Amino acid sequence: GSELLVAERAKSDIPVQKLHELLLTKEVIERKQRILAILKSEKVFDKSQNYFSGRMERFERALAREKKLQLLKRKHKWTLDEFRTASELVGEPGPYGLHESMFRITIAGQGTPEQQEKFGKAAEAYKIIGCYAQTELGHGSNVRGLETTATWNSQDKTFTIHSPHLTASKWWIGSLGRTANYACVMAQLIVEGKSYGPHPFIVQIRDMKTHEPLENVHVGDIGPKFGYNTMDNGFLLFNNVKVPHENMLARFSQVDPKTNKYVRHGSPSLIYGTLTWVRSTIVMQAGSVLARGVTIATRYCAIRRQFQDRDAPEWEKGENAVLNYTMVQIRLLPLLAATFALHFTGKGMMNLYQENQKRMNQTNTSRESNKRGAGPEETESGSDILADLHATSCGLKALSSTIAAEGLEVCRRACGGHGYSSFSGIGPWYSDYLPTTTWEGDNYMLTQQVARYLLKSARAVLKNPTPTNDTTRILSHFQSRVNIGCAFDILGSDEDIVAAFAWRASFLTFEALKHRDEQKKPWNDLLVDFYRLSKAHSQYLVIKNFYDVLRSGEIAQSTSPPLRTILLKLFQLFALHTLEQEGSEFYVSGACSKHQIMLARTSAVMNLLKEIRPHAVRLVDSWGFDDWVLDSSLGREDGKVYEDMFYRASELNPLNKVTVDPYPESEVLFKKVEGGYGKSKL
Amino acid sequence: GSELLVAERAKSDIPVQKLHELLLTKEVIERKQRILAILKSEKVFDKSQNYFSGRMERFERALAREKKLQLLKRKHKWTLDEFRTASELVGEPGPYGLHESMFRITIAGQGTPEQQEKFGKAAEAYKIIGCYAQTELGHGSNVRGLETTATWNSQDKTFTIHSPHLTASKWWIGSLGRTANYACVMAQLIVEGKSYGPHPFIVQIRDMKTHEPLENVHVGDIGPKFGYNTMDNGFLLFNNVKVPHENMLARFSQVDPKTNKYVRHGSPSLIYGTLTWVRSTIVMQAGSVLARGVTIATRYCAIRRQFQDRDAPEWEKGENAVLNYTMVQIRLLPLLAATFALHFTGKGMMNLYQENQKRMNQTNTSRESNKRGAGPEETESGSDILADLHATSCGLKALSSTIAAEGLEVCRRACGGHGYSSFSGIGPWYSDYLPTTTWEGDNYMLTQQVARYLLKSARAVLKNPTPTNDTTRILSHFQSRVNIGCAFDILGSDEDIVAAFAWRASFLTFEALKHRDEQKKPWNDLLVDFYRLSKAHSQYLVIKNFYDVLRSGEIAQSTSPPLRTILLKLFQLFALHTLEQEGSEFYVSGACSKHQIMLARTSAVMNLLKEIRPHAVRLVDSWGFDDWVLDSSLGREDGKVYEDMFYRASELNPLNKVTVDPYPESEVLFKKVEGGYGKSKL
Ligand SMILES: Cc1cc2nc3c(=O)[nH]c(=O)nc-3n(C[C@H](O)[C@H](O)[C@H](O)COP(=O)(O)OP(=O)(O)OC[C@H]3O[C@@H](n4cnc5c(N)ncnc54)[C@H](O)[C@@H]3O)c2cc1C
Ligand SMILES: Cc1cc2nc3c(=O)[nH]c(=O)nc-3n(C[C@H](O)[C@H](O)[C@H](O)COP(=O)(O)OP(=O)(O)OC[C@H]3O[C@@H](n4cnc5c(N)ncnc54)[C@H](O)[C@@H]3O)c2cc1C
Repeated sequence: GSELLVAERAKSDIPVQKLHELLLTKEVIERKQRILAILKSEKVFDKSQNYFSGRMERFERALAREKKLQLLKRKHKWTLDEFRTASELVGEPGPYGLHESMFRITIAGQGTPEQQEKFGKAAEAYKIIGCYAQTELGHGSNVRGLETTATWNSQDKTFTIHSPHLTASKWWIGSLGRTANYACVMAQLIVEGKSYGPHPFIVQIRDMKTHEPLENVHVGDIGPKFGYNTMDNGFLLFNNVKVPHENMLARFSQVDPKTNKYVRHGSPSLIYGTLTWVRSTIVMQAGSVLARGVTIATRYCAIRRQFQDRDAPEWEKGENAVLNYTMVQIRLLPLLAATFALHFTGKGMMNLYQENQKRMNQTNTSRESNKRGAGPEETESGSDILADLHATSCGLKALSSTIAAEGLEVCRRACGGHGYSSFSGIGPWYSDYLPTTTWEGDNYMLTQQVARYLLKSARAVLKNPTPTNDTTRILSHFQSRVNIGCAFDILGSDEDIVAAFAWRASFLTFEALKHRDEQKKPWNDLLVDFYRLSKAHSQYLVIKNFYDVLRSGEIAQSTSPPLRTILLKLFQLFALHTLEQEGSEFYVSGACSKHQIMLARTSAVMNLLKEIRPHAVRLVDSWGFDDWVLDSSLGREDGKVYEDMFYRASELNPLNKVTVDPYPESEVLFKKVEGGYGKSKL
Repeated sequence: GSELLVAERAKSDIPVQKLHELLLTKEVIERKQRILAILKSEKVFDKSQNYFSGRMERFERALAREKKLQLLKRKHKWTLDEFRTASELVGEPGPYGLHESMFRITIAGQGTPEQQEKFGKAAEAYKIIGCYAQTELGHGSNVRGLETTATWNSQDKTFTIHSPHLTASKWWIGSLGRTANYACVMAQLIVEGKSYGPHPFIVQIRDMKTHEPLENVHVGDIGPKFGYNTMDNGFLLFNNVKVPHENMLARFSQVDPKTNKYVRHGSPSLIYGTLTWVRSTIVMQAGSVLARGVTIATRYCAIRRQFQDRDAPEWEKGENAVLNYTMVQIRLLPLLAATFALHFTGKGMMNLYQENQKRMNQTNTSRESNKRGAGPEETESGSDILADLHATSCGLKALSSTIAAEGLEVCRRACGGHGYSSFSGIGPWYSDYLPTTTWEGDNYMLTQQVARYLLKSARAVLKNPTPTNDTTRILSHFQSRVNIGCAFDILGSDEDIVAAFAWRASFLTFEALKHRDEQKKPWNDLLVDFYRLSKAHSQYLVIKNFYDVLRSGEIAQSTSPPLRTILLKLFQLFALHTLEQEGSEFYVSGACSKHQIMLARTSAVMNLLKEIRPHAVRLVDSWGFDDWVLDSSLGREDGKVYEDMFYRASELNPLNKVTVDPYPESEVLFKKVEGGYGKSKL
């Protein structure tokens, strides 16, 4: 395969390194390389047995890796960014995962200075190792329905943490199963018989020395999963466990130990900021997550040859690289375009968020924290950018993680039979990524939040057409033109593509508003429409963001015209392919004519495939995945696919040490195991 | 959850047993129950460790199960049907799989009577255990590109089997990795320097006593996969291995040992019959494969409660079963309808095939075997039912396995977080099913065969409009009405729904014909259109078959009017939901108006969801999956979901025997393992 990839790379003049820098920045690239070198030199990170090991072995090795990462962090004095880079490069969930990402952050965000001093410091030093225990066996999305209680005892100034039913058992809690000795437990606060809703409590669950569960704590790992098996997601039941007053995280509310009254200090609107931030990172990650699969599949399909082209001239009758078949291209190249679209969209959102955050911090923090309510439903729509960002981040999280997850499976399948081997590297990666569609807001349910926001925005526009943010801008524009109609030149003008997506989203918004406000349809009857609406609006956002980036000064300065041309083609492919897939909505809304949609499909998209095809390998190269990171036979940078598959199968595969007795009459199963890797050691 | 499922069942009057019998027949139900009782009483089939074990352990247990099945088969004198039922109930691929399904069948189908006597008998007795070695590392779909050679040696009347390159290594071969001692090897036959294409050879590969590979045979397991890990898919390389003349399967062609000439005896058209049969079973199985996922998700979503309905009256403010949310219904209920649609379609095809086969065998076997060419491309289109069946079975295999595979993932995700647990039972099942989209013809590539057939049929119709089978019938009808147009009442008449699907498929056929024959577009440029065309035609076939069954005498006799009504609603839901998803094609073809598609979506489909919802649990009950078969906490018939999840996690999960040392400074990972399940035994 080597010479085939060399030839592919020779066919295109995309400046790989330039594009790589545009995607990641020089700084990040340098950081990655530096840290990768360190990781590669440590034996514990050797990946050669990853695909072969069972759960126990994988978990054990993951723990070893997490420990080593901590030691390396201390040794090299890694910054948080550097540490995160290292984790990302290791590329598997690890048993310290939730301690790092949620336990420490919750203490930092919701603890008082004293609590940060007490718990935060110990957590930073890995004296206490925590997890974030919100979800229960019976409740996930509906946090208000949690059953674990924390009852205030006014006599001894403690809280009793209790799980009244089996369904109150905490469940799915990352790092809890075997690793954590502390948990941040979300429990219904009960003071003098009255419930105040879920609040966070820091609870010790295992002995600091023996690591055995404390009395009245029943804790363990919840068992094997579709993926994520290097993580010990756990369960946790409390039988009336007492914790002191100081263990309720009290930055935003507490029980006054003197008066036994529940007191609020401002409102935790910052938490919604964090959520927005987390979701924006998911959007950006979706691009690179998908890019792994696209890299693997594109390289493999460029070296995989199968059949001759039926119409090829006699002198070209060699077998055809399957990437030349349009049916392979239509599966992979729009996904290649999507990697860039999602990456730039996530980046754009994060920039916007940070700018806005800065501005807010400078001017009027106090106003903000007083006026904003507890949840996103209560924010004033159409009036500020943060509300817009919050809602759009919900929709984009759902859309982008769906595109990435489903796209990975498309990539896997594009590799034919070999895609099914673990050595493809796509399947294991897909399995680990999949929960992203469910956590941080189930992708289907998030769409309700988006719809709610859009409905409010539409109502605001009907009252006052002056736009206050991008959402109200497009709604207002639509409203002013709806009776005139539109005529977008989607095949001739990129700007018109963006406008057509805006039009369709606006159309669906006002349709939904009619159903809800005029026809008074029940909320539940509209969920499917809301889902479509959210998808339409989020697709618009991706298209718009991608387009804005391509027109931006940064791109103009840092790219050559040929590179800009190909990026623009990727934009068009992503946009027109999406448009064509959702054809009937564009048609019904009047954003496009039947003829335009037909042309987009049969002509524009097919032409774009042809134009992008020669650059496919260089375009995936520009994502810059190291072979060590991809851990894929099919996706090797040097194209030595078959050699690598063969090596892994015949040299590394432990099953080949076994000689079986194949005859049904014999009770012997494994009659010989080389090197004594015997039955009991499975 | 128990009482919730009881209540669900009380809400509906679907006669579960009647419908169960309609689906499976009394005979099959009785057989299943009888065999299930036997399996349950054998300890080796106990499933409790399935989800926990690593590959080695699973493979070993799978081998034990396969052996036991053989012994039971002998003991109980099972028929082939009974044995297949047993395998299906065990529900996992096993190391004898390809011996049973392909090795023996190939000998029976392509061997001479002497070869059947020699190899077939030994195979039947499991003295020799075989596999079917066609695919190579470098070639799968393109069988003509295989690189393994079988060169005729005229001196000693033998063949030399050889793998000239690494890419010639057989790969993916089920049962080969560890189990088989023989292989049926497809190799390029070379006689006196001339190549005659791939032919089947019976080759011994392992010693009958020691089970060690024979000299010059390099064989082993190809390693872990996304699923199918209880099977030892293998690789196989030959270094000039000689086999005697009698080892080339010679029913259809052979090398005359006296003249050294290659001789054909008639043509292997029967093989295409077998392929058609195999694909028809895939279609029918797709229904029940999907039904497992739908059963699990429907039951779970009926007991899973989350949130209150926003519009519910005050007195109904309890939490809502998530199956009540329309956004859950729209994901599950069309799939529920699909289970019936696919089942009846597969059954219909198999009946048609059998009838036709019988008729052909009676009348003129000789004519048939002389006149038919070697491949489906060469059959005369529009002239007989077998050609139609062959082509339609390709399209239906692709459509149905795609619906089933992707539907399973939709079911899994509908279960929220718990769907990700192996205990859901959906994920592991999905992983094992997935290769069905790739083998027996890659789903994307099969669509080219369908398109080719449809183009030929269209050409035939243009020459002579008298229809000879259903495909030419609909094409001819379309052709006669195309200038007049159509006006189908898709929301009022079921027959018109079928007609609308026929119209759209015909429209796309003639469009494709125009592109190919008039505009002379290259084949490769049309692959995407062909894919759509095949999908459209196959959807028509499913709709038509489902509808025909519902109108048939059998249904009229064996079902009560209320049951017929609900089956009809399932038909409508499947049809209108599909139609709405493919809206733009229906619109563009003129089969429906914009308004109809809007109404189908916002009104008809939503109403059908409402009407079917109360019957959902009973409808899945009627598939009659035993809990032992489903092996799912979420899908339990009694609804005891949470108890079962908890039991499996806390009692069965081996990871909970381990106590870790959680601190980064300590090199100890597992500091205690209960019951001595120690590090070395992973
Ligand atoms: C690998 C993994 C790791 C996790 N780690 C953690 C962790 O560390 N800590 C933690 O606290 N949690 C964790 N979770 C839990 C996760 O946050 C929840 O699973 C997630 O929030 C979904 O909730 P649920 O499972 O209750 O789904 P449910 O809410 O039960 O959803 C079930 C189905 O109902 C639908 N549905 C529910 N309500 C509605 C509605 N109102 N309208 C329409 N449809 C509805 C959903 O779309 C879904 O299809 C983890 C989960 C996974 C899979
Ligand atoms: C679990 C499993 C078990 C198997 N068991 C066996 C077995 O027992 N015996 C055996 O012999 N084989 C077996 N196989 C192999 C299987 O039959 C092949 O993998 C299958 O035929 C696909 O071929 P391929 O892998 O070469 O795909 P390829 O042909 O290499 O396909 C790669 C990609 O190219 C596309 N493509 C290829 N050609 C074209 C074209 N002309 N036009 C458009 N697109 C094209 C495909 O759609 C696909 O996306 C098994 C495979 C699996 C996964």
